[in-house]
Amino acid sequence: MSRQATGERARGLFLTFEGPEGAGKSTQLAALVRHLHGAGYTVTETREPGGTLLGTQVRRVVLDPEVEMEPLPEFLLYSASRAQLVAEVIRPALARGEVVVCDRYADSTLAYQGYGRGLGLDFLTRVTAEATGGLRPDLTALLDLDPALGLARAARRGQPDRLERADLAFHTRVREGFLTLAAAEPGRFLVLDATRPVAELSADIWEATQRRLAAPLVPGAR
Amino acid sequence: MSRQATGERARGLFLTFEGPEGAGKSTQLAALVRHLHGAGYTVTETREPGGTLLGTQVRRVVLDPEVEMEPLPEFLLYSASRAQLVAEVIRPALARGEVVVCDRYADSTLAYQGYGRGLGLDFLTRVTAEATGGLRPDLTALLDLDPALGLARAARRGQPDRLERADLAFHTRVREGFLTLAAAEPGRFLVLDATRPVAELSADIWEATQRRLAAPLVPGAR
Repeated sequence: MSRQATGERARGLFLTFEGPEGAGKSTQLAALVRHLHGAGYTVTETREPGGTLLGTQVRRVVLDPEVEMEPLPEFLLYSASRAQLVAEVIRPALARGEVVVCDRYADSTLAYQGYGRGLGLDFLTRVTAEATGGLRPDLTALLDLDPALGLARAARRGQPDRLERADLAFHTRVREGFLTLAAAEPGRFLVLDATRPVAELSADIWEATQRRLAAPLVPGAR
Repeated sequence: MSRQATGERARGLFLTFEGPEGAGKSTQLAALVRHLHGAGYTVTETREPGGTLLGTQVRRVVLDPEVEMEPLPEFLLYSASRAQLVAEVIRPALARGEVVVCDRYADSTLAYQGYGRGLGLDFLTRVTAEATGGLRPDLTALLDLDPALGLARAARRGQPDRLERADLAFHTRVREGFLTLAAAEPGRFLVLDATRPVAELSADIWEATQRRLAAPLVPGAR
């Protein structure tokens, strides 16, 4: 690496990826990390739930199909993982001037547990503000995908069953949630059509990231 | 059993035990369950964190000394376990007219994470109200014990170390928290000096429980 760009920043940059499963978040996250490394930035790459020992254990619980779980405890588990991740990983990395790239963050909670499962947005927002200490991403890349495309693929294998139709209604609410959140904060969100070619999407995300990296830090803004 | 007392109740009774480790909660809980069984009541016995598959897994995480954990995620994990326990175990048992006896409940959270660790009581109270759907115990037996007694025992083995002194300050705040909560709800709490003889304490708890069992149910009170 030819230069240590991170040394120039008193506080790092916080980037998140959001969107449904299958929209290409992991691919785009990996491409962005390669761009950042190529430009000499020190990157901390993490994900939710996970990223800490507590988060890894929480991830195991929420993804265990044997564990019966209401929407509210599910939300509280995600919030516990997030609170530990912010305290143990994200804030220290930002304080070192690094670029933090996170696969899912608070927007996923609002979209899935709020818009999707119907938990009250005020309550979710309040707990999330506590769990994160108010830390918000500088840039959120939302990979938007019509959930009906997934159902259409299932339909080609036969009639979609009741569960698939329920899934479609849920994922439609989640998608609308993400788009509502994005519309409320256009300066933070980069909304991308996930069906576009991978290389085009990577180029757009890298361009938006470079603009954030070039912006002067506002002292005391956080 | 000579009678099915539970059949007489449209809604069961919810009893909790609170206090520090070593105060005799388990012993008293077992004694109360024996009394209830002897009188013909159907009892659901549970504990926090735990009582459900989710709670058991959360318990494993919070008690794992390897897992680094800030007070806030710790609180959120306890709350997740409680929300699932209320939904999956406690409310259904009360709806069947049973007596539910729980080792620790929301008061422990307020005492340990609030008074002890210093998290904001307003926030803890709000999250707890959501997690429990507002379900409060009919009777809470608080086994009160001076934490200095524990330190005194340690001191006889030599000078108390820095950690033991920090522990004393923490457990003193927790004790004061419990007593403050009890003072605010004298109708719910039965405060007991945990140094009294076991049989005397059991008799007091059973007497207070019988008074609650004899009280007429107020329709729609919950």
